[in-house]
Amino acid sequence: MLLAPWRSPLSRALHRNRSQPYSRYLQLATVDFQGLPANRTVVFRGFLENSNQLQIITDARSNKIAHIQAKPWAEICWYFSKSREQFRLFGKLILVTAADVKPTLQLARQRAWQNLSDSARLQFSWPNPGEKRTENLEAFSSSDISAKEPVNNFCLLLLTPEKVDHLELKGEPQNRCLYLLQQDRTWSTQPINP
Amino acid sequence: MLLAPWRSPLSRALHRNRSQPYSRYLQLATVDFQGLPANRTVVFRGFLENSNQLQIITDARSNKIAHIQAKPWAEICWYFSKSREQFRLFGKLILVTAADVKPTLQLARQRAWQNLSDSARLQFSWPNPGEKRTENLEAFSSSDISAKEPVNNFCLLLLTPEKVDHLELKGEPQNRCLYLLQQDRTWSTQPINP
Repeated sequence: MLLAPWRSPLSRALHRNRSQPYSRYLQLATVDFQGLPANRTVVFRGFLENSNQLQIITDARSNKIAHIQAKPWAEICWYFSKSREQFRLFGKLILVTAADVKPTLQLARQRAWQNLSDSARLQFSWPNPGEKRTENLEAFSSSDISAKEPVNNFCLLLLTPEKVDHLELKGEPQNRCLYLLQQDRTWSTQPINP
Repeated sequence: MLLAPWRSPLSRALHRNRSQPYSRYLQLATVDFQGLPANRTVVFRGFLENSNQLQIITDARSNKIAHIQAKPWAEICWYFSKSREQFRLFGKLILVTAADVKPTLQLARQRAWQNLSDSARLQFSWPNPGEKRTENLEAFSSSDISAKEPVNNFCLLLLTPEKVDHLELKGEPQNRCLYLLQQDRTWSTQPINP
């Protein structure tokens, strides 16, 4: 597998901003059933091995699951505040649920679960997100969660970028570069006006 | 004009994160002609006077202009890294171009221009954004830009929220509150599960 040409500036950005834990937070925009935009912060969980696919995790009970199943497209907006640069990554989403039968994807889902902190794992057993607040605080604690086997609510989400727009605010003038995935699966690289 | 109930937590977040200039950066998701999501970072330029409308500025030559005119809906995702909280603001967009005839909106557009820095104003006279990079660097400098009267490319964008989802990661468990604009133009406030 060849690394896409935008992987190198993205790795550099992650490295330059590594002192800020939230440099791994990005905004994922999708479209709902009515064709309206939805946007939320998610955490970058690294690239799927031997691929240019970004890994994100999500809860099967989240609204975005049904939206993604109906319209599996997303644009990620990722702003790095220390190096003052933005990556916009547009592409198709693959949702990996507990029911997914592909062994490589199921293994990736299991690994993503194992890499989570205990407190992050716990959230997948919390009461249904988005519903009226559960008053009983005990519902938010649970002791019998396996660190090895993901719970059913746990989903892995993969974004396969087709278009990447990289903007550096620091340049004079700013630098901006567009990467496009071609029909032959190679990438074009074009500096564009900011 | 009554302040919407989410204005108070949002003001608090802006205040708590004021040491970070990028706390005024937010991600604006819209939908393009094909019904696909688009997402980019923009700068919050304060609320329009006597309203709950967020002000953003944009260039008339930007792709998002045509998208917004066809489908004037957006969701803002606004993450505050210091206080660790997120606001998602969904609502309708109003685009105020040089051709807009409403005096109050035209005045707001003019004020937004006057509040810009010289370097930010200059960008509106740069070569067409998104086109192949202009090699001639002189094209990125210009001396005859009025600080008083906006150039034609300068647009004001107003978001009128109808739904606001506020999530605080710091709580134990996290706190999340949903604000909805009702038919009678009042807001409902409902704590929900994170």
